[in-house]
Amino acid sequence: MYISVPATSANLGPGFDTLGVALSLRNSVRIKRSKFFSISIRGEGADNVRLKGNNLFVSIFNEHYRRLTGRQDKFRFTFYNHIPLSRGLGSSSAVIVSAIAAAYTAAGIGISREGLLNRALVYEPHPDNITPAVMGGFNVATIDGGRIYSIKKEMPKGLKAVVVIPDRPISTAHSRKRLPKRYTTQDVVYNLSRSSLLTAAIFSERWEMLRVASKDRMHQDIRMEGMPELFQLQKMALQHGALISTLSGSGSTFFNMVYERDAFHLEHLLQNRFPNFRVLTLDFDNRGLIIEE
Amino acid sequence: MYISVPATSANLGPGFDTLGVALSLRNSVRIKRSKFFSISIRGEGADNVRLKGNNLFVSIFNEHYRRLTGRQDKFRFTFYNHIPLSRGLGSSSAVIVSAIAAAYTAAGIGISREGLLNRALVYEPHPDNITPAVMGGFNVATIDGGRIYSIKKEMPKGLKAVVVIPDRPISTAHSRKRLPKRYTTQDVVYNLSRSSLLTAAIFSERWEMLRVASKDRMHQDIRMEGMPELFQLQKMALQHGALISTLSGSGSTFFNMVYERDAFHLEHLLQNRFPNFRVLTLDFDNRGLIIEE
Repeated sequence: MYISVPATSANLGPGFDTLGVALSLRNSVRIKRSKFFSISIRGEGADNVRLKGNNLFVSIFNEHYRRLTGRQDKFRFTFYNHIPLSRGLGSSSAVIVSAIAAAYTAAGIGISREGLLNRALVYEPHPDNITPAVMGGFNVATIDGGRIYSIKKEMPKGLKAVVVIPDRPISTAHSRKRLPKRYTTQDVVYNLSRSSLLTAAIFSERWEMLRVASKDRMHQDIRMEGMPELFQLQKMALQHGALISTLSGSGSTFFNMVYERDAFHLEHLLQNRFPNFRVLTLDFDNRGLIIEE
Repeated sequence: MYISVPATSANLGPGFDTLGVALSLRNSVRIKRSKFFSISIRGEGADNVRLKGNNLFVSIFNEHYRRLTGRQDKFRFTFYNHIPLSRGLGSSSAVIVSAIAAAYTAAGIGISREGLLNRALVYEPHPDNITPAVMGGFNVATIDGGRIYSIKKEMPKGLKAVVVIPDRPISTAHSRKRLPKRYTTQDVVYNLSRSSLLTAAIFSERWEMLRVASKDRMHQDIRMEGMPELFQLQKMALQHGALISTLSGSGSTFFNMVYERDAFHLEHLLQNRFPNFRVLTLDFDNRGLIIEE
């Protein structure tokens, strides 16, 4: 069995805990029934011994597989990881989503994409990463009564993501702690109106609205203070064609959306300016979770 | 010259100061150059003497006409008003928008709908009423650098608004004062995610999402405490086919969106239960401001 899940950029612009998009950068895992349990990891995390000893994928997989089948079978897991760890590109969501999907598939029990999302919510209470990971495309999501309600828009051709992955993380725990506990009505309306406008802009493909619609007042500046060169990066990206330039998730990765014709120029400009960061031009992903039995 | 502007329901669901929709209930005015200034008012406000003496339309019209032409010509104004006053159906926005449009038309100077919106913002700092009044349809709007940025979705056939207009207003001033000054992150995400989802639902015509997407935690319940029967009204509407049941603007009118097939039943049910309130089934308006020279 082969399972593959895309990277995601969540917290998109003003869309705190709400908006996310899937990127063509995938983690995959091949799973075979076996006499002995074994793990091999290639790519991101391959040199991290802890990931083998205390593997989140395996523990979620086993928990669900045992619950579904009542059995404790053994498997050989081979991971091919392309999503950087702890950089705000949804690597944890990819693990959670693929582990649950793998358990249902291995048990021979069907589960809808919506059902899978609701199972994943137990491990990741913010729906903006797991929803695009499962669905692909741009997604708007909310939680109501313990369930995710989401709507997807397929991303059209002609747009690219230029993502800039710093050489170090911003600590999520540290950043969350520094965020305000309460927001003024003015700041709420600032983000609420822009998150709604960003949604309208993407659904109606009114790209000229993205610059105004992608501004945030809830969390980005506070988090970016932990890595001040991100302010220069954002300024440079907006001066050179970025339609959206925003922290990916809680960072440290920066997500820039551009017309295809501007991607090459922006990628090289940012790579030259930030030689220690990885700069990748990616397509948007519209497939989400892929399962091959 | 003849100018006509539709009623609007703003603050739609969770879309505080952001989402609004135009309804097929219009205020019109006929304006003729004349030797003497005169006003006549038919319909809503006809019996209100103060509206003749201190007329907001006339003062905004004169202000703009004089600025644009340098002249102080006299006009005869005949108003045909169908939008109830002080009930959260956008009667002030209709006055502001039509007065500015009339002044430009009388002066023979063109103004775009966007330009008109930015002029209107001086008198009405919340864009969610004036935008649908000018544009028609469902609108998402934000303000950036003193300008309105908005995106419109034409409302399709097959949907109706069942609006319930109480026999008295909720004081806007009173209600605004009682609203919180700050909101918890949890409440912000509640509204922000639902306002975004409501936008996605309307743009993609996923009507089954509206029930969850139209819930609000920012202002409705607090305002409805000023007229507790509105809670019963909302409950009854949601039990009998309403896809959205929400305060219109800051009230006291209640806006219910239904499939056409459910409108007749809901209208009669609500009219019987609330005999002192006016219950109207309306189409959505997609034309917005109409000018005939």
